Amino acid sequence: MKTVLQEFKAITKPTLLLDKTKCLANIERMVSKAKRHQLQFRPHFKTHQSLEIGEWFKAYGVDKIAVSSLSMADYFSKEWNDITVAFPTNILEIETINRLASQITLNLTIENTESLNYLKTHLRHKVNVFVQIDVGYGRTGISTENTAYIDSILTIVDSCPLMEFIGFLTHSGHTYSCKTKSCIENIQNQSLKLINNLQNKYSNRYRNLIISLGDTPSCSISEEFYGVDEIRPGNFVFYDLMQQQIGSNAIEDIAVAMACPVVAKHKNRSEIVIYGGGIHFSKDRLIENGTTIYGKVVERTKTGWGKVLANTFVKSLSQEHGIVKVPPIDFDKYTIGDVIIILPVHSCMTVDVMKSYLTTEGEQISTLFTL
Amino acid sequence: MKTVLQEFKAITKPTLLLDKTKCLANIERMVSKAKRHQLQFRPHFKTHQSLEIGEWFKAYGVDKIAVSSLSMADYFSKEWNDITVAFPTNILEIETINRLASQITLNLTIENTESLNYLKTHLRHKVNVFVQIDVGYGRTGISTENTAYIDSILTIVDSCPLMEFIGFLTHSGHTYSCKTKSCIENIQNQSLKLINNLQNKYSNRYRNLIISLGDTPSCSISEEFYGVDEIRPGNFVFYDLMQQQIGSNAIEDIAVAMACPVVAKHKNRSEIVIYGGGIHFSKDRLIENGTTIYGKVVERTKTGWGKVLANTFVKSLSQEHGIVKVPPIDFDKYTIGDVIIILPVHSCMTVDVMKSYLTTEGEQISTLFTL
Repeated sequence: MKTVLQEFKAITKPTLLLDKTKCLANIERMVSKAKRHQLQFRPHFKTHQSLEIGEWFKAYGVDKIAVSSLSMADYFSKEWNDITVAFPTNILEIETINRLASQITLNLTIENTESLNYLKTHLRHKVNVFVQIDVGYGRTGISTENTAYIDSILTIVDSCPLMEFIGFLTHSGHTYSCKTKSCIENIQNQSLKLINNLQNKYSNRYRNLIISLGDTPSCSISEEFYGVDEIRPGNFVFYDLMQQQIGSNAIEDIAVAMACPVVAKHKNRSEIVIYGGGIHFSKDRLIENGTTIYGKVVERTKTGWGKVLANTFVKSLSQEHGIVKVPPIDFDKYTIGDVIIILPVHSCMTVDVMKSYLTTEGEQISTLFTL
Repeated sequence: MKTVLQEFKAITKPTLLLDKTKCLANIERMVSKAKRHQLQFRPHFKTHQSLEIGEWFKAYGVDKIAVSSLSMADYFSKEWNDITVAFPTNILEIETINRLASQITLNLTIENTESLNYLKTHLRHKVNVFVQIDVGYGRTGISTENTAYIDSILTIVDSCPLMEFIGFLTHSGHTYSCKTKSCIENIQNQSLKLINNLQNKYSNRYRNLIISLGDTPSCSISEEFYGVDEIRPGNFVFYDLMQQQIGSNAIEDIAVAMACPVVAKHKNRSEIVIYGGGIHFSKDRLIENGTTIYGKVVERTKTGWGKVLANTFVKSLSQEHGIVKVPPIDFDKYTIGDVIIILPVHSCMTVDVMKSYLTTEGEQISTLFTL
């Protein structure tokens, strides 16, 4: 453990660090996998939410993206011409929809006739339509069995010259409750079976039908993509402890970490108090062997961070306080004024609350939310 | 349930509503309580984080505040001249400390000799020092039994002309795990006993010693403040479902709520999908009769919101999605494009992620984080 300000001299408060080398390796790995399986790669940008990081994808030939809100589509439309809003269309934002549709290829996600009927009378520019299909997660989308409803949706889309049906979109979010490779593979196989049935039913009528599938665990682990045309993983760009627990990545692949000042120490309970709380990490947590964990402390290196320090983790978070449990043998290595580095549980949420990055090379990177 | 855009016409995406009338009543109640017990009232502004809402306190004669970071002190120093940073002093922010200390009465919180020794050699302007005492919460502070360590801290403070010891500061955060009034009263009584012992020991040496106590449950419920000079509650300004579960407030006192568009409906499971997820509510949750709840839906009224709708609650949150469980009998009352109103579990965290308010009178209110 280094002493006060020996490195990262600019860091005086909770800071989200980004290891660009790890991040580029994560991007490259997914680009290669998509190529190997002849899949269109449409990364979900809800995780990093940054135009600058988006540029890193362009270097790999990526030219289509997914986002999870029209606000995010708006932000990325400055530099991206083909954007899927992978979220049930919010008709209240019709003005943004019309503006974006006049500027870029805008792909909306539809799962009900109500929003379609609204769009039919309010659209002023052409949009593409993905129909959201539920392959078992049970959050959003239409069941593959409910083809009568899918048909009624397609009838409306086909009747509107400003809408073009381009495919089915699924998100197997139930992989997030997996802890083994075979659990994820089973879900992927089940999803493929359901979605291929649907494709068989509709592929004669819609020749260029796209099957778009997206969740980081499946895209990271599965080698089975039969019938899939496009993948939309998001979290893989950084990964995190939650994904590592699921099995999507090695701990070394995690590309973001929080740097937090040590502000107090309590030897009797072998705890250190950091400036870094729920407003910096978010409150997402994971359970490991019965212990609740909000982050894991890693070794500091000259160029960033190294391995996880055994049994050294964030055990609780208040608004601004984090309590770090430390093995008694290591307690005296920590000094008030140290900056320690912590891997986050859920990088998407941590990025969202932190709003900007500092790369391990010292570069500031902004997001949609940067002040 | 009103239909699309009938009211709140400006609302097209997740919006944090603020009922100013309820908020002013909460402020007034706490002001009166402080007066009744002859307590200095130093509200904690970490909950609302807004200069404009701060003005509402000034109208009640409040002229001293507490905050939980130097960034927040910096923001509020534009309008407030006496600020306590109720967080262990982060010595890495010495520049901000010196700048603020040159401008306002800055009260720092100290709980270790390391940070004091650093301040002693780096302070350029006078600060006041509160010593943080742990009365049983076990997060931060020095045990009341450890008077030897308290003495060593006071010796350093007294030796430095730029530091003045002004009192002891405690936070009984363990009241947050209470579910009954007597639980909170027991904690308060225990805290008072400990802190009064300390006061007796030091009051001869320090004639104007301030005992500062702060947590919303104790300040809301207890009528026992013997030996206390100052209270620093924060959350009371808005309250929330968590505080209501603890017993700090009635559900009608909750002064903030989220307005979220309905984007999808699933009748088979009687769930509606809202645009409003973890990045809008935060991921704080409560357990009620074994059910995890991320928010409760309230009736919409012409001027804001009314009573809680029975068995209608947010059951899960993803990044942007919220899933609302609705009684089957009410399901058809909800329409795609409706805006529904939801009481948050933890208002401090919701404010922090939402970054600004819309009052039920239509006024935009900014915070420290407003873009």
